Amino acid sequence: MITLDYKNLFQISEKHGLTEKELEKYKNSTPQYLKNIKSLNQGFYKVFSENNTIKDIQKFAQEKNKFKDIVVLGIGGSALGTICLKKAFSHLFQERTPRVHILDNIDPTIFAEIEDILNYEKTLFIVVTKSGETPETLSQYFYFYKKIKEKKLAPQEHFVFITDPTQGLLRKISIEENITTFPVPMNIGGRFSVLTAVGLLPAAFMGIDIEKLLIGAEKMARNFLNEDFEQNLPFQIALIQYLLAQKGKNITVMMPYAQKLYSFADWYCQLLAESIGKKLNNDKKEIFVGLTPVKSLGVTDQHSQLQLYNEGPFDKLIIFLEVENFGQEITIPNVYPEKKEFQFLKNISFKKLLQTEKKATEQALTKNNRPNITIKIPELNEENLGSLFMLFEASIAFLGEFFNINAFDQPGVELGKILTKEMLK
Amino acid sequence: MITLDYKNLFQISEKHGLTEKELEKYKNSTPQYLKNIKSLNQGFYKVFSENNTIKDIQKFAQEKNKFKDIVVLGIGGSALGTICLKKAFSHLFQERTPRVHILDNIDPTIFAEIEDILNYEKTLFIVVTKSGETPETLSQYFYFYKKIKEKKLAPQEHFVFITDPTQGLLRKISIEENITTFPVPMNIGGRFSVLTAVGLLPAAFMGIDIEKLLIGAEKMARNFLNEDFEQNLPFQIALIQYLLAQKGKNITVMMPYAQKLYSFADWYCQLLAESIGKKLNNDKKEIFVGLTPVKSLGVTDQHSQLQLYNEGPFDKLIIFLEVENFGQEITIPNVYPEKKEFQFLKNISFKKLLQTEKKATEQALTKNNRPNITIKIPELNEENLGSLFMLFEASIAFLGEFFNINAFDQPGVELGKILTKEMLK
Repeated sequence: MITLDYKNLFQISEKHGLTEKELEKYKNSTPQYLKNIKSLNQGFYKVFSENNTIKDIQKFAQEKNKFKDIVVLGIGGSALGTICLKKAFSHLFQERTPRVHILDNIDPTIFAEIEDILNYEKTLFIVVTKSGETPETLSQYFYFYKKIKEKKLAPQEHFVFITDPTQGLLRKISIEENITTFPVPMNIGGRFSVLTAVGLLPAAFMGIDIEKLLIGAEKMARNFLNEDFEQNLPFQIALIQYLLAQKGKNITVMMPYAQKLYSFADWYCQLLAESIGKKLNNDKKEIFVGLTPVKSLGVTDQHSQLQLYNEGPFDKLIIFLEVENFGQEITIPNVYPEKKEFQFLKNISFKKLLQTEKKATEQALTKNNRPNITIKIPELNEENLGSLFMLFEASIAFLGEFFNINAFDQPGVELGKILTKEMLK
Repeated sequence: MITLDYKNLFQISEKHGLTEKELEKYKNSTPQYLKNIKSLNQGFYKVFSENNTIKDIQKFAQEKNKFKDIVVLGIGGSALGTICLKKAFSHLFQERTPRVHILDNIDPTIFAEIEDILNYEKTLFIVVTKSGETPETLSQYFYFYKKIKEKKLAPQEHFVFITDPTQGLLRKISIEENITTFPVPMNIGGRFSVLTAVGLLPAAFMGIDIEKLLIGAEKMARNFLNEDFEQNLPFQIALIQYLLAQKGKNITVMMPYAQKLYSFADWYCQLLAESIGKKLNNDKKEIFVGLTPVKSLGVTDQHSQLQLYNEGPFDKLIIFLEVENFGQEITIPNVYPEKKEFQFLKNISFKKLLQTEKKATEQALTKNNRPNITIKIPELNEENLGSLFMLFEASIAFLGEFFNINAFDQPGVELGKILTKEMLK
């Protein structure tokens, strides 16, 4: 079971940490916030009830297992969850078959270089855009569509779409071209869509047990719907972030101590930045609120960012993700027994060294009055990753309520889109 | 030639941008700041004069070209520049021979999984630690040393060290084991060491023209030593960051619009965080200063972070890196001429789309009073990347002077190291 440890907050001066009393004030308000969230008709916490799609996804991935390369065309919420899933469950140094590539940019070198490795006859493209109208994704699609046609291959064999159930250009094309299409439920926005076909279809090609992802998500969703403060991890995390934001902690550092969770931080960065970075509150008042997410990795970034976290401005909350079990134990051998300076490393495991460094980092931060909390994950598997996705999605919903903003829109990117179109005309 | 465009700062309200007058005040002070920096006896801007090492590095890489895998063991400043070099000049989807792996963490899964692909007989380990005493790197070395011995292979054939010229445990071992060792000059700290053997030796194995890296660095170093404000790009960038920090812009977003420069942002994040995040100033007064670096990628993060940059708190400076030439032009084909909505993409190149989106993003941010500057790079090659490294290293030196701090130490990580040792005893 995933747990949250926030006791370090109480060890820190009140100016920078929290007191039991400050939390106490909110402990009975979980039901009210939950009620508000439910009234928004968002679907992110109901993904597991869409079992029909699951079977279709599994069947589709099974049927297409002759393909050598699966290329996901998508950007932002259409890519970040998928990248996280790939990094979490892939071998660090070996590609499995089929290879899954996620093209989430339009840099010309991507197109020049992906062609060096693709055999179009054995390639399936998954085109992902919630709106069906994302220019970057559509331009990628146009490019590869032309290639498939040039090779005299059938588009309906080499493309699959994931988009809005009824609207948008991609939906239209899917009908005209007779291309298999999976829906993104209307009430689930891009950055909350990793546990829909958006993440699950690519995951199925990666050999990930997608049912277990959903089982984990469902468990955490029950936590989320629990009106008891002590049982509601998403509420606790959101409340801590909110209260500390009032004390000037406008930066949230997401710092997993697990190599394979590094991309989880990227996924979370979008979720936090786009959901909570808002000019207007629900009363249309200008508040220019936001928490800036920062991605970090233990132990690596102890040698890069930690100096700043320990000594810089008091503007951060650090969220550690700690994995308790890494599978096999690997020991640091004592190859130079005569070298006294390094006997402290003698015959301990790398896991022990990593976890001790995490503990030491946490203590040093606490001593320096830097607020930090730890989310403990028994081991990195499908069920727990599903829970983690849901934990943070749900915490974002509460955070939106605390700040009295709409956590589910993104009006601030419209101007750039309009200017792009104008400039190209 | 690399150029800097900061004119958007003048389009923004004075509260969030800059005026010519504010810059004017500092325009004659470049010589004084330069004099201060020179008195610190730092070597980062003199790397190109170490030509002896260059020839040795090239010769060594030539001799060892029978190896299939080169494994770099190092962390922080011993890894981030090397990762940046690899990502900048590697094919996005294909590995070249020899493969270069950079192991900058002690997560047990790294060790379990790297063994699946290594043939020790054809593997060379480059062990990199400036101090020669970094526990993470030494424990990695101990692990692979034991493997090499178990395979009855000769350590001096399969290891090469990069460390302090005279001190530290690794230097001692190099003598006892007769292992080839390249120096990190004493006056160049880890995070400033990418253009020493630390980055250059792995780069030579990657087929990168390391002389050109240094030629580019030397060009920018001449800029750095130029007393004329208008010629001194590093001074301009540092001054902008410093003045905007006085206006509450405590976050620096590094946002390249080029897939292969993404890891440049990681390298810069360490440089900025560790150098400028300081509790004490030069007069030992507590100031808790620091700029928090945030890594971002165009156009990808327009769909992840931009909402926050446009609408959130006024706490950021965005530094764009813009590449002007990507080699071949790749066109977005007009495959659905009847679809009116997307005719704006018709037959333009991906480069054009990317650069237009960058321009639009920049304009939207400016309109929203969000300060941003652009560094223009004619194309991504060795010379320009060398210049870029030097540009930011030198700007950090000026930034240290503006804040009146020591930009070259990292006292804030000591406590964590001490606690780790205590806990393991």
